[in-house]
Amino acid sequence: MTTKIQKAACIGGGVIGGAWAARFVLAGIDTKMFDPHPEAERIVGEVMANAERAYGLLTMAPLPKKGKLTFVKTIEEAVEGADWIQESVPERVDLKRNVITQIDAAADPKALIGSSTSGIMPTELQRDMKHPERMFVAHPYNPVYLLPLAELVGGEKTAPETLELAKARLAPIGMKGVILKKEIEAFVGDRLLEAVWREGLWLIKDDICDTETLDDVIRYSFGMRWAQMGMFETYRIAGGEAGMRHFIAQFGPCLSWPWTKLTDVVDLTDELIDKIASQSDAQSGAYGFRELERIRDENLVGIMQTLKGSNGGKGWGAGKLLSEFEAQLWANAPKPEAKASADLLKLLEPKVHPSWVDYNGHMTEFRYNQCFADAADAFLRLIGVDMDYVAAGHSYYTVEAHNQWLDEAKLGDALFVEAQVLPSDGKRIHTYMWLRRASDNALLATCEHMMLHVSSKEGKSVPPLPAVLEKFNQFADAHASLPVPETAGRTVGQRK
Amino acid sequence: MTTKIQKAACIGGGVIGGAWAARFVLAGIDTKMFDPHPEAERIVGEVMANAERAYGLLTMAPLPKKGKLTFVKTIEEAVEGADWIQESVPERVDLKRNVITQIDAAADPKALIGSSTSGIMPTELQRDMKHPERMFVAHPYNPVYLLPLAELVGGEKTAPETLELAKARLAPIGMKGVILKKEIEAFVGDRLLEAVWREGLWLIKDDICDTETLDDVIRYSFGMRWAQMGMFETYRIAGGEAGMRHFIAQFGPCLSWPWTKLTDVVDLTDELIDKIASQSDAQSGAYGFRELERIRDENLVGIMQTLKGSNGGKGWGAGKLLSEFEAQLWANAPKPEAKASADLLKLLEPKVHPSWVDYNGHMTEFRYNQCFADAADAFLRLIGVDMDYVAAGHSYYTVEAHNQWLDEAKLGDALFVEAQVLPSDGKRIHTYMWLRRASDNALLATCEHMMLHVSSKEGKSVPPLPAVLEKFNQFADAHASLPVPETAGRTVGQRK
Repeated sequence: MTTKIQKAACIGGGVIGGAWAARFVLAGIDTKMFDPHPEAERIVGEVMANAERAYGLLTMAPLPKKGKLTFVKTIEEAVEGADWIQESVPERVDLKRNVITQIDAAADPKALIGSSTSGIMPTELQRDMKHPERMFVAHPYNPVYLLPLAELVGGEKTAPETLELAKARLAPIGMKGVILKKEIEAFVGDRLLEAVWREGLWLIKDDICDTETLDDVIRYSFGMRWAQMGMFETYRIAGGEAGMRHFIAQFGPCLSWPWTKLTDVVDLTDELIDKIASQSDAQSGAYGFRELERIRDENLVGIMQTLKGSNGGKGWGAGKLLSEFEAQLWANAPKPEAKASADLLKLLEPKVHPSWVDYNGHMTEFRYNQCFADAADAFLRLIGVDMDYVAAGHSYYTVEAHNQWLDEAKLGDALFVEAQVLPSDGKRIHTYMWLRRASDNALLATCEHMMLHVSSKEGKSVPPLPAVLEKFNQFADAHASLPVPETAGRTVGQRK
Repeated sequence: MTTKIQKAACIGGGVIGGAWAARFVLAGIDTKMFDPHPEAERIVGEVMANAERAYGLLTMAPLPKKGKLTFVKTIEEAVEGADWIQESVPERVDLKRNVITQIDAAADPKALIGSSTSGIMPTELQRDMKHPERMFVAHPYNPVYLLPLAELVGGEKTAPETLELAKARLAPIGMKGVILKKEIEAFVGDRLLEAVWREGLWLIKDDICDTETLDDVIRYSFGMRWAQMGMFETYRIAGGEAGMRHFIAQFGPCLSWPWTKLTDVVDLTDELIDKIASQSDAQSGAYGFRELERIRDENLVGIMQTLKGSNGGKGWGAGKLLSEFEAQLWANAPKPEAKASADLLKLLEPKVHPSWVDYNGHMTEFRYNQCFADAADAFLRLIGVDMDYVAAGHSYYTVEAHNQWLDEAKLGDALFVEAQVLPSDGKRIHTYMWLRRASDNALLATCEHMMLHVSSKEGKSVPPLPAVLEKFNQFADAHASLPVPETAGRTVGQRK
């Protein structure tokens, strides 16, 4: 497949380059990293750890086996054999141009070369290349391992198909490439951000508000709007039935009112910098940098998961993208093989997600049920009940379960669910499951679970199709000799 | 309590005024509405329906009995007896000033008068008032019934304590008042929005991208950042260990680069308006205005609920605010009374939330468990197990449950849980619960549930404190004569 990156190279490994490497490695792509900074390995390692933690919370879909990350000593070594090379060196046009020219000389002429620049035009960067047609800007947003956007911008010598290919190759690593029609300094996102930043600096300098108030104005209002719809779609709604045209007619005149500091650029004096820094300390100083970073990442994860459930479960924006990414992960995951044996089946390895805990940091009651329900789904996939099977009109419904809650799970705990198939005929699937904590094997909860096979067309219970029944029987037979767990068949309140 | 609004008046009832009315009414405040528009009642009714739907999804906390909304024929009638009057008439300084002067003349001199203006300075509006010290801007954001922000801005004659009082009075209706230090046209939020809008218009006019791409750039990147941290806190993290000062030093120079259309205002020609309108149709035309509005509201609800669980359950930003709002609702709710009778106890009336359904729009398996867990919590509150009881070191833990899934619930369905207390000693609470759909009473699921009373200090099971035990016994005694449900004591897979 041409749309899947086979080997990646990262030139420059700070917060941005390190997160690109994390995106590649977590998508199963072997990646070489070149960064002459003496602490590059430590910095990249920290970013990688953040990214792995965030991915662990973001999705339960099966991530592929991690790609290999190798630190190398030269650009030439890094780019050898790579089909995507991402440049993330400091933001100086001469430095970036030199590095890109050096990459160009050493790389396979068909390899794509993306630059992480925040604002330099690709025409500037590709000036001295032999194969400039495959060079473009792929401008990501911090934290790159969570925010999916990459603005794709071509220069005068960039081939149009390069941008389309780049966009197609970003999807399998969970990113959203958007192609700009023309190059422009700072592209689209940083144009908008710079406009807000400039206006914000004036508001602080003129003592209209402090940094905390300004941030509150953003996050309690349009920030939430923009997490899910952008500016134009939001205003389209504001226009009501009359739509966009009405909105512009109504608010257009404001453009000529003195609503922004149109013509002036604020002078960044030491005094202003001190003012901002001390207001920022007052606002956020109670949290360390790492703590803020963790809170931010958990919030972003939660927002994307929320948007995944939006629009009647079809997903919206970054949540729809997450859905599609997970569908790819499932499609690319090795098909679960019916390795029936007398061992218990390890069905699920969830982590306790921030949204799963109460104010004490303990996993709430019904999240234990969620683990067992997800584990039952995993068993169904194991016997061939996949999306196609369900789409064709057959499925299993859970009809009954018995749970025991035995111990607490805490935020971030790695858990796992093991299962034993109890004697049942496949039209019914009867299992017993144990939820344990990975670190010490402590038993947290049990579930005796019963599913029934149904035809959604006929609206009634029917036997499963032969292929599914055969696989189910393999598991049932392999577990037939296991002793029935002591608490199977238990009633609520039964004395031991 | 002086911080609770007793009676509200809304002058002007469009999308903004109607949503203010919804905020008041849903917080239990009687509200009078004056709007001469012939369709005012219909428009306000639609906004109110949206708001009620959104609140139903937003929180399970007990909303107070709705306030009464009355449409009246004059400003004088509307403001009579009101202690908060909100002006939301069209954005023309002469019109607003006249209306506010008229309000001032008729209202109790101690009543607060807020204006919803998007940009007119309060000094302009209060010019002709007799009691200008109680007038201010309270600028909200659409949809006002969900986005909590109100920028509070005083004019030259506004008393400083007016703004503090206004802020205190907004909290009980779920809103976040932020006080600006100085008045300025367009205040803070619209300054920032106007800067983005102007820049965005240039990007469309110059064909750098279309409206959909611009929106995608926002919502796949910084939009999600800004839903939970504003600009300064975000950049503080970007500065890493070195913080804000480092960030400014690094990115400050961009201010003087040609990154924004600093000096020019785009000319809103018919051609440009046509371009934007048709791009917007291509982007969003697949969804009707009401559909987009619904999706937006569900997304905002989900984001706020996500942020409520953030920071280890302590909440963050709008989610922390939602937590506090709910705590108020619980505190103000009539204490559940131990009206023990032989009737089943109606413990919970949830609605099927967007995040509860799968891609088919059906409630997922473990959400049934959530309903029963929440119902069990409701029973605990009924017998006096409240926050204080738990904080003092005692609580009930769920130890065991048996569930049957019998029918499907769909997005938006109104459900209810009824319970019967089975014979148990109060150290154990043994109940049987039924989850039904309100519209047709259909039985969706059952739960036999067992909780155990524990001392968190001693880390073991102990009898409940006498007051709780006594209340529990009243319920247990009242249900003692009820027949035990047929399926109580059922084991998984048991034949009928």
